[in-house]
Amino acid sequence: MPDLTIAGIPGSLRKNAYSRGLLLAAQELAPPGSHVDLVDIRGFPVFNQDEESPLPEPVRRAKELVKRADAVLFSVNEHNYGLSAAEKNAIDWISRPYPDNSWNGKPAGILSASIGQVGGARAQYELRQTMVFLNLFPINRPEVIVSFAADKFDAQGRLTDEKVRSFLANHLVELVRYTRVLTRPA
Amino acid sequence: MPDLTIAGIPGSLRKNAYSRGLLLAAQELAPPGSHVDLVDIRGFPVFNQDEESPLPEPVRRAKELVKRADAVLFSVNEHNYGLSAAEKNAIDWISRPYPDNSWNGKPAGILSASIGQVGGARAQYELRQTMVFLNLFPINRPEVIVSFAADKFDAQGRLTDEKVRSFLANHLVELVRYTRVLTRPA
Amino acid sequence: MPDLTIAGIPGSLRKNAYSRGLLLAAQELAPPGSHVDLVDIRGFPVFNQDEESPLPEPVRRAKELVKRADAVLFSVNEHNYGLSAAEKNAIDWISRPYPDNSWNGKPAGILSASIGQVGGARAQYELRQTMVFLNLFPINRPEVIVSFAADKFDAQGRLTDEKVRSFLANHLVELVRYTRVLTRPA
Amino acid sequence: MPDLTIAGIPGSLRKNAYSRGLLLAAQELAPPGSHVDLVDIRGFPVFNQDEESPLPEPVRRAKELVKRADAVLFSVNEHNYGLSAAEKNAIDWISRPYPDNSWNGKPAGILSASIGQVGGARAQYELRQTMVFLNLFPINRPEVIVSFAADKFDAQGRLTDEKVRSFLANHLVELVRYTRVLTRPA
Repeated sequence: MPDLTIAGIPGSLRKNAYSRGLLLAAQELAPPGSHVDLVDIRGFPVFNQDEESPLPEPVRRAKELVKRADAVLFSVNEHNYGLSAAEKNAIDWISRPYPDNSWNGKPAGILSASIGQVGGARAQYELRQTMVFLNLFPINRPEVIVSFAADKFDAQGRLTDEKVRSFLANHLVELVRYTRVLTRPA
Repeated sequence: MPDLTIAGIPGSLRKNAYSRGLLLAAQELAPPGSHVDLVDIRGFPVFNQDEESPLPEPVRRAKELVKRADAVLFSVNEHNYGLSAAEKNAIDWISRPYPDNSWNGKPAGILSASIGQVGGARAQYELRQTMVFLNLFPINRPEVIVSFAADKFDAQGRLTDEKVRSFLANHLVELVRYTRVLTRPA
Repeated sequence: MPDLTIAGIPGSLRKNAYSRGLLLAAQELAPPGSHVDLVDIRGFPVFNQDEESPLPEPVRRAKELVKRADAVLFSVNEHNYGLSAAEKNAIDWISRPYPDNSWNGKPAGILSASIGQVGGARAQYELRQTMVFLNLFPINRPEVIVSFAADKFDAQGRLTDEKVRSFLANHLVELVRYTRVLTRPA
Repeated sequence: MPDLTIAGIPGSLRKNAYSRGLLLAAQELAPPGSHVDLVDIRGFPVFNQDEESPLPEPVRRAKELVKRADAVLFSVNEHNYGLSAAEKNAIDWISRPYPDNSWNGKPAGILSASIGQVGGARAQYELRQTMVFLNLFPINRPEVIVSFAADKFDAQGRLTDEKVRSFLANHLVELVRYTRVLTRPA
């Protein structure tokens, strides 16, 4: 079987965001036969439909990476109980211009982390609603919702909590399984 | 009683967005004793907590307008079944830097319009979830959810549908009533 | 290929609910190689975990039908902007007792209808959140969200609107396609 | 000032539900000048609009208690990432028959507890969406979302965790403050 490419979508522009730490851990934990490539969402202007053409170069590059990927993996940053603007902006740009929705039909995983108790869960369900329109196919289990993130990453932003690493590894196994199911020939 | 200032928050950067047309109609329909001032959200960079200080000048001006207002009125643009990135970005910036959340304690109205059948309703409920954290106090009724917007505005972007204008006028009456209740002295 | 069984889950106990009319139309419109069986949710007590054993007989029968089905089709009734109690009650019972979740791993379609403008959409997204825990795999497109239902059914409760019938037929085609993908051998 | 009555709405029919323990703690912690009366939701049939008249006697009694109350306090039980059927059923019954919505215009608090990490938060936001239609006015802060509930109640179901008791006490203070604001004469 060919190696599966999973496009990792950051949840924030911060250098040391926990959501970035989750994607770096996902790169380490991707099961054999798969790997995670990070999509760079820096340099995207705030989306304005009056000015979407031509696509800004950083958007064009991100769209290419998403299109070529077999699956996508969102790492969600919750701001004010919703998706961060940086992440929603990247999602919206990559769905444009109509009808060139680069997310269309892809299997998807979702990770989140926050310093609080609810671990970004609110933003995860918001993303799932957006996925309906984008025609993304998210997996369900195990959910990776990392609460009290300050205790689970080290000073360099590396995910050190073994229980979370295990959930994350299992999330990736399920994403790879589901991707193989969705893409196998009839 | 002093005149109430309602800060109108656009849902989009587009020049002729329907959400902008709703705010212009709100300016015409504000009940006696109130007026709607539009907040300018152009020129906000995509929020990055690593670079939030000093506040960009357009953000600083918007925060001042929101702080001075007695109430706020969001005009929601739904992109991919969620808030537009431009609107979430404005909301997040105006809540920063911690703990200077300029939304804190304000009464709020919500309008939305879309070309489709659901009229932006999905994004309205997403905004309500964000309002919990921001400690905004939204009114409930009448909801202004404008479906099939292309039929309800003229070529210049002016809201012409009389039924929607009536709902919008009543929404503003309720917002003013509720604002007077929340702010009257004990 | 063997014929696919789709279990239709009613959204209401009413005899002439629009949600029931949608399921009857789905029975007519199921594509070749599939058929829709209606699950009877009458006679379920209000769920109380203190009294879930032994399972009430109507619940036991419904669970059997769901377990044997290849896919499920929810017809959603929106009450007070959420799922009807009758439907949530059926969903919760059929997930019990732990760990005998009869929904586990099934592909799923979703329909809704209401007399208002938003057509039950709010309850659809609520159901999608519940599906994450139940490990159901909903399809995305085309969504069947029937607004102003009183104009789209005849006096006998039969769905007569041709545009809605076409969306519904396409929803079932996608559900059957997705079910075949999820269940085909590796 | 007259004593304020807060109607406490249980989230479950279980005898020892954590959501019931939260309401019992609220009775102990209600600030001076207020008290919490529990609404009994046992004996409600599953709502069926074909059979809503005459109101069942337990529903009639619950409606009376809610109508007389100055504020309401929901204790939410999350089942399958949504409101429990028992709670949604009580909410829907108490809103009926149209137009006799007994919730109309009341200020509201929300509590939740669960054995898991997210503490019932998902069901809280679902309830807030329903509140829009019911025209309830929920407070925002501090949220009471009790995760890992098994560690925070004793064997008799009494809330023993001091930090949670403090959040709950402050939630009630805010509910009383807001109720006085909404109900004071112009």
